Amino acid sequence: MTATLIRQVRLSGDQESRDILIEGNKITRIEPHIPLPSGAILQEGHHRLVLPGFIDGHAHIDKSLWGMDWYENQVPRELPAIIENERNFRRQQEFDSRQQSERIARLAIAKGTTHIRTHIDVDTEIGLKHMEGVLATRDKLADQVYIETVCFPQSGMLGRPGTRALMEEAVKLGADYVGGIDPSSFERDPVAHIDAIFEIAARYGKGVDLHLHEAAELGAFSVELMIERTLALGLQGKVTISHAFCLGEVDPAYQDRLIEGLAKANIAIATTAPANRSVPPYEKLRAAGIRVTAGNDGIRDTWSPYGNADMLQRAMLMGLKYRWRQDKELEQALHAITYGGAEVMGLKDYGLAVGCQADLVLLDARVVAEAIVEPPLARTVFKAGKLVADRGECLF
Amino acid sequence: MTATLIRQVRLSGDQESRDILIEGNKITRIEPHIPLPSGAILQEGHHRLVLPGFIDGHAHIDKSLWGMDWYENQVPRELPAIIENERNFRRQQEFDSRQQSERIARLAIAKGTTHIRTHIDVDTEIGLKHMEGVLATRDKLADQVYIETVCFPQSGMLGRPGTRALMEEAVKLGADYVGGIDPSSFERDPVAHIDAIFEIAARYGKGVDLHLHEAAELGAFSVELMIERTLALGLQGKVTISHAFCLGEVDPAYQDRLIEGLAKANIAIATTAPANRSVPPYEKLRAAGIRVTAGNDGIRDTWSPYGNADMLQRAMLMGLKYRWRQDKELEQALHAITYGGAEVMGLKDYGLAVGCQADLVLLDARVVAEAIVEPPLARTVFKAGKLVADRGECLF
Ligand SMILES: [Zn+2]
Ligand SMILES: [Zn+2]
Repeated sequence: MTATLIRQVRLSGDQESRDILIEGNKITRIEPHIPLPSGAILQEGHHRLVLPGFIDGHAHIDKSLWGMDWYENQVPRELPAIIENERNFRRQQEFDSRQQSERIARLAIAKGTTHIRTHIDVDTEIGLKHMEGVLATRDKLADQVYIETVCFPQSGMLGRPGTRALMEEAVKLGADYVGGIDPSSFERDPVAHIDAIFEIAARYGKGVDLHLHEAAELGAFSVELMIERTLALGLQGKVTISHAFCLGEVDPAYQDRLIEGLAKANIAIATTAPANRSVPPYEKLRAAGIRVTAGNDGIRDTWSPYGNADMLQRAMLMGLKYRWRQDKELEQALHAITYGGAEVMGLKDYGLAVGCQADLVLLDARVVAEAIVEPPLARTVFKAGKLVADRGECLF
Repeated sequence: MTATLIRQVRLSGDQESRDILIEGNKITRIEPHIPLPSGAILQEGHHRLVLPGFIDGHAHIDKSLWGMDWYENQVPRELPAIIENERNFRRQQEFDSRQQSERIARLAIAKGTTHIRTHIDVDTEIGLKHMEGVLATRDKLADQVYIETVCFPQSGMLGRPGTRALMEEAVKLGADYVGGIDPSSFERDPVAHIDAIFEIAARYGKGVDLHLHEAAELGAFSVELMIERTLALGLQGKVTISHAFCLGEVDPAYQDRLIEGLAKANIAIATTAPANRSVPPYEKLRAAGIRVTAGNDGIRDTWSPYGNADMLQRAMLMGLKYRWRQDKELEQALHAITYGGAEVMGLKDYGLAVGCQADLVLLDARVVAEAIVEPPLARTVFKAGKLVADRGECLF
């Protein structure tokens, strides 16, 4: 069994540095001074800050254009036009989802990400090509990053016959979650859409993760329907609503009732903290015991040119959106990109403690807040006890 | 006269690289190929993108804690409490405004900023100490960065006798603009506050730059008062309203009337594009001929831990806030941090053209949009024809 001793790193909140011993894929000791076991690899910590591996709770690694020719974005603002534009793009040129998902995964690993939940387009034109591409990347990089998958009917399901069957095929192929998209505003039939995806999830023992951009009361109605079905089908703990802008847009009393329902159904929320939209009320959600994860969403794709796979940048954007300036407030942003994501993924052995899987990031910052407001680039990353990135570069 | 030939750089929109000849502090030729004049310095451009020097139109370089011990932010959210906290901080420890303003100026220069408008605290406790500190930095770095100054009654003017006289002293000392702050919500007497600062500005032939955080109709009332006084005192073209969240919060018809008034009075708007507040309607303002600049505001001070003096990061935050994803839309963000700022400062010879002052930035990006969504760090910066930063580091 390989062992690594990380000498003298600072855990958040500590004044003094400590040593961390990794044996196999686990953290086995965290103490002020641990003698180097014979045969163990020594990693000098130089009193850097150590954080648990970052978790991207909402990604689209199947569709990034990272590393390709610059894509000149001329796309209109409306959702159907954006989707049609992407379909056109794919008709006009070869797009290698396997290669692109690996590029984003490597970029993410170099930045300290150890876990990714990615939505993967499934539609009547590309079929399961993107699923197969991402699953190949998942298997290839299984020792470097944990990837869980959501089959995602990006182009719509109800209006495109054949998509529902493809979604079921995607689940058989290995998707961990059944995805969905704006049941009213885009799919035009909230009950039919939500019933369909919950039915597949329940039948195959999978979870649900639905993209909900719908505003205010319309979005809230979709939330209500999802709460009802989660309870009816016994899917508590296995459902995530992504974005959920509506939770930040309804009046406080209705917001409270929705939060109560989400807590009862143990539904998680994934946010990207967009600057241009309302956001779910983070503190209220967490106070109600609701699990909240953060995600980078699409990175440099036909939808949007933004993003670089850095979850610390996402934490900064969260902080700016929620107006978190206090050090304690910014620790909430760190929670969202670490433990919050682990709760949503249901990871059992995540964290910076003895017995946990050794997924960790070393970086140059005095405190967590500094790491968030000015993310240092030269990160050293361990995944399941193995060094996977150093000085901000992937080692494989 | 020193000459520099920058060989083969790409101007935005060009397919082919060109050479730029700088003689003295001016750009004298931009052509596909220029022979190296004898005695001229050669700078290889390597086909990098060249942009005009960045302009930070709203800064507080007098109060940053950059380079000091980490400041643990425990500050409440309310404006008076934030201000009192800062005053307490200054009572408890020595704070060297000269040193700190130089640190931020150097950081900004390394990131391509060639012009800064900074607000400088003036109050009954620190007196003119910060003014003197920043003016010393301005003079020391006169060849490396252009700094214009706003004397700013951060702690309030009406409620602190003596402040008004200090503001006048600050103007005599060299402030280019008379600053102001929330005339109703903070100063509690909009007419008295606005009259006082406009009176000083008019009497000394200076401009005005007022911090307006007031919401919706309350802020709009302050805007109305400022339009009236600008017209009455003949200060057209010399007044800026900073933040002006209210312009994004009133109903469209009222918004149109305010924009009409701002255009008539030729009042400029400075924005930081905050994720957590409404923003002025950028496209409508520009369509009405209103000058718009962008600024980084405070950088890592007792107010907020965010910021790193990078105007390209500010352009990214603008893009996220305004939901600019098209390449053409993102060029608006570049405009705000370059030509827009130059218009607000009234710079006569700014730009990437023959005859302009040679303030320019070379960086590694294929197009402007890429430089904004993933700001490259290794910048090469010329100020008035002289190389002031290379590979992202100050050269002096
Ligand atoms: Zn998404
Ligand atoms: Zn300010």
